[in-house]
Amino acid sequence: MLQTDGVPVVSLDRVREYKDRIDVLLVCGGSASDLPQMTPALAEDFHVIDSFDTHADIPRHFAAVDEAASKNAHLALISAGWDPGLFSLNRLYASAILPQGVTYTFWGKGVSQGHSDAVRRIPGVLDARQYTIPAEEAMRRVRNGEQPELTTRQKHSRLCYVVAEEGADRAVIEQAIVTMPNYFAEYDTTVCFVSQQELLRDHAGLPHGGSVIHSGRTGVALEHNQTIEYRLELDSNPEFTASVLIASARALMRMTQRGRSGCVTMFDIAPADLSPLDRKELLAHML
Amino acid sequence: MLQTDGVPVVSLDRVREYKDRIDVLLVCGGSASDLPQMTPALAEDFHVIDSFDTHADIPRHFAAVDEAASKNAHLALISAGWDPGLFSLNRLYASAILPQGVTYTFWGKGVSQGHSDAVRRIPGVLDARQYTIPAEEAMRRVRNGEQPELTTRQKHSRLCYVVAEEGADRAVIEQAIVTMPNYFAEYDTTVCFVSQQELLRDHAGLPHGGSVIHSGRTGVALEHNQTIEYRLELDSNPEFTASVLIASARALMRMTQRGRSGCVTMFDIAPADLSPLDRKELLAHML
Repeated sequence: MLQTDGVPVVSLDRVREYKDRIDVLLVCGGSASDLPQMTPALAEDFHVIDSFDTHADIPRHFAAVDEAASKNAHLALISAGWDPGLFSLNRLYASAILPQGVTYTFWGKGVSQGHSDAVRRIPGVLDARQYTIPAEEAMRRVRNGEQPELTTRQKHSRLCYVVAEEGADRAVIEQAIVTMPNYFAEYDTTVCFVSQQELLRDHAGLPHGGSVIHSGRTGVALEHNQTIEYRLELDSNPEFTASVLIASARALMRMTQRGRSGCVTMFDIAPADLSPLDRKELLAHML
Repeated sequence: MLQTDGVPVVSLDRVREYKDRIDVLLVCGGSASDLPQMTPALAEDFHVIDSFDTHADIPRHFAAVDEAASKNAHLALISAGWDPGLFSLNRLYASAILPQGVTYTFWGKGVSQGHSDAVRRIPGVLDARQYTIPAEEAMRRVRNGEQPELTTRQKHSRLCYVVAEEGADRAVIEQAIVTMPNYFAEYDTTVCFVSQQELLRDHAGLPHGGSVIHSGRTGVALEHNQTIEYRLELDSNPEFTASVLIASARALMRMTQRGRSGCVTMFDIAPADLSPLDRKELLAHML
């Protein structure tokens, strides 16, 4: 659905026709199968940004994109967004500043599209929406400086709204969800059956968010608690992620103009490069 | 009071004897009269870091330090800490990502050393401690996406614990505090008289903190609220500030090794340079 008049929509097959007209290309595919192919391929012809978010595969993706981008001195930024992205930055800043500390990441309350998809693949399920919910009690203990060891189950719970086919056995569907390995088995999961109409009416949005909380200690006897928290509360996860990518494009352009090439992450971007303000304005109004 | 055995304490007059033995010099003077002289003078002979925090004078300080540091290709970082510093970074990141938005900074609850000093200068006052207190209602409205316009009085209140001389007129002292221009007149201020013993027992620490909250909107009709909050809760303000300076020293050293010189701020530091972890570790564990 075209939201902005006058913006052409062009097939990916024709992207190379735009080689001289695109400053920075934002690659918005999925991390499972799109980006591992697309980002390296496109980095040979463009400066590119992606939001690759399969944390365990980032080192491999980085190496592939770095090799491809370097061929023609392009610059590529991978894994931009909020996690990976802004949350990663906050994990880094906090742990560099308070090395005697523990970093916790909580997600939600928000819609996990991966978990929603997993539920939709269960036989008898027509549609589904999965919310990830952080445990208030766990966050309270972390903010309190207790530095608790928390199991997966203690940190988050999961809530699924499911539209079942008529005549489907709801008990079987519920069992299939709550025992699903990796996705649900390690969590306390609640399943609510709703009509398609209710799902569309009450759960059409894609809100998300979460907190990175770093609980550190300083002092001769480590007697002082120092807590850093970074929190996002987003009505629209995809629009916020897009906003991060767009600011990153500004930074990438400036870095290419200084001759930088290869693959980078948000860890490599000096914050000033993200801002539309120049140094004088930053010093006067932002510092 | 020497807290760490074996660390020599040397007069500032002899600092140039250490010219070849100091990688980065942390200059920990006051912003009113120390740092405007000290940082430029020392930047001629050392790579330096200060935490200059008189916001309005930062452009002038930057220019003076930049000129001095550039003479001998030294690198100087000014205004490191948490505000200016980490709070500035978060103002920049948030406003670059969500340009349709408003950034609010709340301080406290915490001890303001400048305001405590101002109270101590009043005749009849023996000692004093001033707490800056953020308005919960104002923070609630900001977090709620209301983007309110807030007066100084609506954002913070002030609480003073005062030790008065025996026989001093407490009503006169209280009046002198609450009407003091710039420091208290624009705020709702509460004055509590306590004994010196009570002050030392209950108010010896230097806790501080606060929140940078950016309330932004996205969407075709700006229908989505997107809230970014960065919050510090610090048992010890000076120890936390020192922790920021130390991590910054690591970054500064790396930047000098790449040939950077002149004056910079935390806006110019790529986050990766702050971390003790190398790129491979950052990609695997932090991103």
